[in-house]
Amino acid sequence: MELSELTVRSFANLLGSNAPAPGGGSAAALAGSLGAALTAMVNALTIGRKKYAEFQEGAQSAFDASSDLKDRFLTAMERDTDAFNEFSAAMALPKETPEEKAARSDAMQAALKRCIESPLHVMELCYETIRITESSLGKTNANALSDLGVSALMLGTAVQGAWLNVLINLGGLKDENEAAAYRTRGEELLNDTLTLSRIVYEKIEQSL
Amino acid sequence: MELSELTVRSFANLLGSNAPAPGGGSAAALAGSLGAALTAMVNALTIGRKKYAEFQEGAQSAFDASSDLKDRFLTAMERDTDAFNEFSAAMALPKETPEEKAARSDAMQAALKRCIESPLHVMELCYETIRITESSLGKTNANALSDLGVSALMLGTAVQGAWLNVLINLGGLKDENEAAAYRTRGEELLNDTLTLSRIVYEKIEQSL
Repeated sequence: MELSELTVRSFANLLGSNAPAPGGGSAAALAGSLGAALTAMVNALTIGRKKYAEFQEGAQSAFDASSDLKDRFLTAMERDTDAFNEFSAAMALPKETPEEKAARSDAMQAALKRCIESPLHVMELCYETIRITESSLGKTNANALSDLGVSALMLGTAVQGAWLNVLINLGGLKDENEAAAYRTRGEELLNDTLTLSRIVYEKIEQSL
Repeated sequence: MELSELTVRSFANLLGSNAPAPGGGSAAALAGSLGAALTAMVNALTIGRKKYAEFQEGAQSAFDASSDLKDRFLTAMERDTDAFNEFSAAMALPKETPEEKAARSDAMQAALKRCIESPLHVMELCYETIRITESSLGKTNANALSDLGVSALMLGTAVQGAWLNVLINLGGLKDENEAAAYRTRGEELLNDTLTLSRIVYEKIEQSL
């Protein structure tokens, strides 16, 4: 069953159980989806309002883009759990003969890459979304200002949470050049997203 | 229908729509529930493991307490949307006669208090949970270290998100003494929770 088809309560219960998946990677992706949803909501509450007539075009395109990102985060949430399960399956492969050991190691490395690329993808989605959130500031319904702030917070948590999942898996990767490339990409996405997230949160907190 | 009985996808879609509720307040409470769930999970993955024999008693009580908090956050999520709807209903009361105006104003002030107390309660739950998360560090399954970090992030976002909801509603409160008391309480919970959240995240990021 897809995680996004569970009820919110069932998802929280499964997350809080001793089932190894879903874990923090999927929770981070869900936080991203909630952040994108809030940016979509704030723009939806701007569309069609006379008071914000000059911002209509931007609000519509921000709504469309963030709605799409909300869905892409949910897909990423499923993929993160898939990657984890793939790694667990590789771990469980036989390791009696040298051939089996080599095949198991290759399968584990391949699965590990997916366990790194999946949260890196979530980080890319976070950066894409926070740029929309940031550009929505001052051009959307002022009654929903706190909601835009919560969006920025969610995206900050999503990017940092995904980053922890990149880091915990990087340690197991044998190819050092590849590991270094993943790390550089992740640090860039982390810094760029967090910078915008903090700017948006602080501006909103100070104006409330 | 209770929000927690919606599927994750339906919840994200409703959050991302032009329906004014649920909004950031409920999303913040949900982030809190996911944070508590992750702390519960990390402790659940510690219970019964020989490697962590010396921490069994603590892991069990941390699991029990954080599981309970996960549920209390979900209840708080419903209450936040109830409070918002109550305020909207008060806004819609008739305001033709002086008596009607006075009754409407009283109803709005009463609803506003609930809109402040609801996120303040979420902030209290955040503080209660982060103390468990922090005390779980170094005493739980090391394979789930990143999950404990995502828990701390979620609780940080929940407390900051709830704080924005306190702030946006404080502005409308007529009783200045009451407003000052709410503000003091909120600032204390915000600082105490964020301090622990950041300590946990940084320790984990540095050790990965």
